[in-house]
Amino acid sequence: MTAFPVDHIAPAEALAIAEPLEPVAPTTTRTPAEEARTLVAQGKMAALATSSEDGTPWASAVLYAALADGTPILCLSTLAEHGRNLTREPRASLMIGEADPQGDPLDSGRVTLAGRAEALEGEAREAAVAAYKQASPASGLYGGFGDFTYYALRVDRVRWVGGYGRMDSTDADTYHAAEPDPVASGAAYAIKHLNEDHAHNLLDMARALGGHPDATEATCVRIDRYGLDLNVQTPRGFTSTRIAFAEPANKPGDLRGATVELARRARGDVA
Amino acid sequence: MTAFPVDHIAPAEALAIAEPLEPVAPTTTRTPAEEARTLVAQGKMAALATSSEDGTPWASAVLYAALADGTPILCLSTLAEHGRNLTREPRASLMIGEADPQGDPLDSGRVTLAGRAEALEGEAREAAVAAYKQASPASGLYGGFGDFTYYALRVDRVRWVGGYGRMDSTDADTYHAAEPDPVASGAAYAIKHLNEDHAHNLLDMARALGGHPDATEATCVRIDRYGLDLNVQTPRGFTSTRIAFAEPANKPGDLRGATVELARRARGDVA
Repeated sequence: MTAFPVDHIAPAEALAIAEPLEPVAPTTTRTPAEEARTLVAQGKMAALATSSEDGTPWASAVLYAALADGTPILCLSTLAEHGRNLTREPRASLMIGEADPQGDPLDSGRVTLAGRAEALEGEAREAAVAAYKQASPASGLYGGFGDFTYYALRVDRVRWVGGYGRMDSTDADTYHAAEPDPVASGAAYAIKHLNEDHAHNLLDMARALGGHPDATEATCVRIDRYGLDLNVQTPRGFTSTRIAFAEPANKPGDLRGATVELARRARGDVA
Repeated sequence: MTAFPVDHIAPAEALAIAEPLEPVAPTTTRTPAEEARTLVAQGKMAALATSSEDGTPWASAVLYAALADGTPILCLSTLAEHGRNLTREPRASLMIGEADPQGDPLDSGRVTLAGRAEALEGEAREAAVAAYKQASPASGLYGGFGDFTYYALRVDRVRWVGGYGRMDSTDADTYHAAEPDPVASGAAYAIKHLNEDHAHNLLDMARALGGHPDATEATCVRIDRYGLDLNVQTPRGFTSTRIAFAEPANKPGDLRGATVELARRARGDVA
């Protein structure tokens, strides 16, 4: 079902006993790098791990901005422990979780970017100041204090966890080259809207396109630029299936049309 | 205004030009240890900082439970990097943020607990399993797998940040001896309710009890067992004030009565 190594069976999947009765068209999923870039693009607060004076790893809360290639920007004070830590040991990592996780929080997305924090100067600092001010308007006030330094986290490696059994690693080049999912900011609303107002369309999809013609209930649990994931109830038990869009959504406004096309196709409408 | 060291002037306080015109009764605030215990009691997910094989500090997402004395319990797999890290280097820290921060996220609460992760055995493990299952029902399934270990984080030191200019440290004994704020779970609702339906009562409080008889607007920004914090507008400028309850609230149900008493007193009602 997934191209990612399954470390553990997911609690939901432990119940997934219903095999598809009909073949399902192959689907594309976001790559680990796309997942990572998407989490970084959607988030605002992160956990920073630095190394304290005695070597104890130190977790703290930071607000970050991201440059166009996904490089995280931090603005830290040496009056704070994490700021002092970085002046001694630049190796650090940043963990960013899903903006608004629903349900079991262990079944939600997060990513760790590990690398080296580089204090910025000159033009690189100016670009960082501008990006950071977008994320934290108040930094216009505090960012100029003498004890604050703007840092870029130069990423070495990336570990993404999407939830139970969905996880993978990627390298810095792949991470920087990937694109954040353009429809991610509308995903939570789309899922809610589909489940509340279009349950019959989701059921059509599960039956006609998802391999379960006997489905009795279908709930959208994830949506992305390539398609949507359904939890499906059948008389043979519970399962999940993924339905691909005809074309990937390339901008936020594409999500609606792509979903409507799926609904029509599932209903058997001729285009 | 605060008993805590002010590292930086807060953006809001940069505008706080209106001095009280009348004396304000002394107020109690939660201690840093109470703030820390409250955040730990309210939270569910945390960021864990461990030390990776090459020494890079590694930030990851974990679900935690807390024992009655505030000791955090983790349940980690050696298939995950943080689990492997702890088998090599038990020193770690845990950062827990406010459950549902409103407004500027840098002006919200978070705490870092630093110490040593101890793998639990015997009765200590049984107590941890029970506490963890309350926090993560699914751990009944995965917690028993052979690659999972239950850990207690033996806390050495605690750093609390409440927002701009509100921060302090405390030690392990003070942390464990403190009590989580019993009204914290109702605070967000109480703030919303007071601001939406009792703006006139808040204005009475700012005028009669908060030292600003010329206040034109008052908004509740924080509430706890000892009192509430108001942002106040006056013709002389913006400011903030804290109003103490007659008695600390000792259980969730006490918050309403304590606030009603304040409102009556502010209006000049004789008890």
